Amino acid sequence: MKILVINAGSSSLKYQLIDMDTETVLCKGLCERIGIAGSVLTHKGPKQAVVQQDMKDHNDAIALVIAALTDADHGVVKSMDEINAVGHRVLHGGSQFFQSSLINDEVIKAIEDNCDLGPLHNPANLMGIRACMNAMPGVPQVAVFDTAFHQTMPPKAYLYGLPYEAYEQFKVRRYGFHGTSHRYVSQRASEIMGYEEGLKLITCHLGNGSSIAAIKDGKCVDTSMGLTPLEGLVMGTRCGDMDPAAIKFLMDKTGMTIEEMDTYINKKSGVLSISGVSSDFRDLAAAAEEGNERAELALEVFAYRIQKYIGSYAAAMGGVDCIVFTAGIGENDSATRARILKGMEWIGIDFDEEANKGRGEIEISRPGSKVRVLVIPTDEEMTIARDTKALC
Amino acid sequence: MKILVINAGSSSLKYQLIDMDTETVLCKGLCERIGIAGSVLTHKGPKQAVVQQDMKDHNDAIALVIAALTDADHGVVKSMDEINAVGHRVLHGGSQFFQSSLINDEVIKAIEDNCDLGPLHNPANLMGIRACMNAMPGVPQVAVFDTAFHQTMPPKAYLYGLPYEAYEQFKVRRYGFHGTSHRYVSQRASEIMGYEEGLKLITCHLGNGSSIAAIKDGKCVDTSMGLTPLEGLVMGTRCGDMDPAAIKFLMDKTGMTIEEMDTYINKKSGVLSISGVSSDFRDLAAAAEEGNERAELALEVFAYRIQKYIGSYAAAMGGVDCIVFTAGIGENDSATRARILKGMEWIGIDFDEEANKGRGEIEISRPGSKVRVLVIPTDEEMTIARDTKALC
Repeated sequence: MKILVINAGSSSLKYQLIDMDTETVLCKGLCERIGIAGSVLTHKGPKQAVVQQDMKDHNDAIALVIAALTDADHGVVKSMDEINAVGHRVLHGGSQFFQSSLINDEVIKAIEDNCDLGPLHNPANLMGIRACMNAMPGVPQVAVFDTAFHQTMPPKAYLYGLPYEAYEQFKVRRYGFHGTSHRYVSQRASEIMGYEEGLKLITCHLGNGSSIAAIKDGKCVDTSMGLTPLEGLVMGTRCGDMDPAAIKFLMDKTGMTIEEMDTYINKKSGVLSISGVSSDFRDLAAAAEEGNERAELALEVFAYRIQKYIGSYAAAMGGVDCIVFTAGIGENDSATRARILKGMEWIGIDFDEEANKGRGEIEISRPGSKVRVLVIPTDEEMTIARDTKALC
Repeated sequence: MKILVINAGSSSLKYQLIDMDTETVLCKGLCERIGIAGSVLTHKGPKQAVVQQDMKDHNDAIALVIAALTDADHGVVKSMDEINAVGHRVLHGGSQFFQSSLINDEVIKAIEDNCDLGPLHNPANLMGIRACMNAMPGVPQVAVFDTAFHQTMPPKAYLYGLPYEAYEQFKVRRYGFHGTSHRYVSQRASEIMGYEEGLKLITCHLGNGSSIAAIKDGKCVDTSMGLTPLEGLVMGTRCGDMDPAAIKFLMDKTGMTIEEMDTYINKKSGVLSISGVSSDFRDLAAAAEEGNERAELALEVFAYRIQKYIGSYAAAMGGVDCIVFTAGIGENDSATRARILKGMEWIGIDFDEEANKGRGEIEISRPGSKVRVLVIPTDEEMTIARDTKALC
């Protein structure tokens, strides 16, 4: 069984073709600048290819993907008949979707209904879905939602202190994102820990966007991202948690409009702007090493927030058995992991500095540590493919 | 030595006269509706009095206070010469004030400079100060700042994930409030615990406005209120922590302006609006008891946030030795304390349900509890008077 995994953005589209019999990635690629001059497809498989060709919309992009998959030279299938199903990453499933769903008219309607909660992503995700339905009629399509895994949160965790009407009428509540990643690494951690009733995990997805989740008995009970992916940790360019009253204060001071403030807190903040150096943690580490105080400060703020979230999620679950690091920073930045974990002895972590230097799936707490700490590389595409297989 | 303590709001002014030789409150009172029709002074001492008389400004109010203090019938001093100094509560000391200060031109200028950080309170505090200086020339006046105790926070705790320029140019950072109360109860807790190096306290000031502070070695290292008193816990009518992006989302949905949103999140949110019942916890408890689900939910959200802050502040300090409850809810609402403390065994709290039913200064953890839990009635006025005495 071969499954195509699609992650469509507004002007980009990522794909992977996965052989589910062996869980092997046959090829992957990226369409960039869709609808913009200079669009290009980059294909990586047994053979590489770069296709510079106009893509005026997502239909054009999918046509180019299909051409790449079936190309006589760099393709990996003889015909599209070999592809049994398509799995789509969809950002926002609102309160409707607790799990992945086979796409039908009703599901498309629900994704449309959630466009105002995910105004940048859901419309793009829908363009990808529709392009695939047009190009591959009759092939089952599955939607895998970034929010679905977090839908088990209890009301005390997802309600804000806003008027209840804001929740009822406008659906303002905590949703959480990166759900596919938190689910994947939490399931893998459960395997490693040995499934036990009431297992308490804290999963730290630390990348350009970062979020943390508290997972008890396999179910998410709290997570740091909220109504949007802005809330929670300080990220590459997002401010994360702050006094909501700071928005009006800064608008009054600077004359910015609310739209400009939205860009300010989403695109111009985070470690990039605390440091004034970069949103890339390798650059920050290098600058801090050279004595740049604001780069050092950005790394401190980043780590401190994570420590505080770990403490608060231990409180949310009545303790913690295992902490998991994943995604770009979580998997690769051992110095940031060390910064977070030193000083966490109080919670029962016996941090293993030597083990922390390793790569791949590793345990970075010492044997006997009351709280175990794991690094587990995430694989959202494989999770999407598995969900798709299960539903087809 | 007798000290007058003044807490001036925009249309109200509270006062207490304290004999510092015995730390006895001689009388206290409240001027209401200053500058509004129907203004009234309520005086409580050995004899009570209600004075209905126009107060067009804070000078009028102070004149009435002086008349009440020296009144032949209900007064407590023969002449104002008996009053040695005046201590003023001032909301916002910005980054300039780490402690209370004897008021001079420079201090007044600094309080003025911080008016944009405390636009509702600082101008009112200044009116109170100037009225006293006019009415009691030569009597030393002291400013006691709500923010001062929190000025020991390290940058990683007070910096938001916003551009560094927002901090440098516009002073946007975490300041914290209720500092006089957190200081008072933390000092009392240190006495009870026996001063030991590195003592780790978490103080929960839970009233109509609520905040939590992490205090290590007598110094505040983090606190839940931020640039303004909006951030942190869900309060009577304030939303507390939420996705900052929810502001634009709700403005787009409802057509509210940023000024209307400011009122919405400060005055129309909190447990009042989650419950739809009341901001008073006695009303919420009664409604929840009768089966009102939203009242129950409001109480759950309130307690859950506190649990999470306790966990995060334990992380901030590398553990916790003692948790303190104070202020209206913290001192009197044993059911809310129980709701918070049940389920905190993981952190080392052995909660004593029987002791929790007591009143006044009590210990509500069992003997031998790894983390001790105390209820300590706060006394901001006495702290202001002590600071004033120390500076005069």
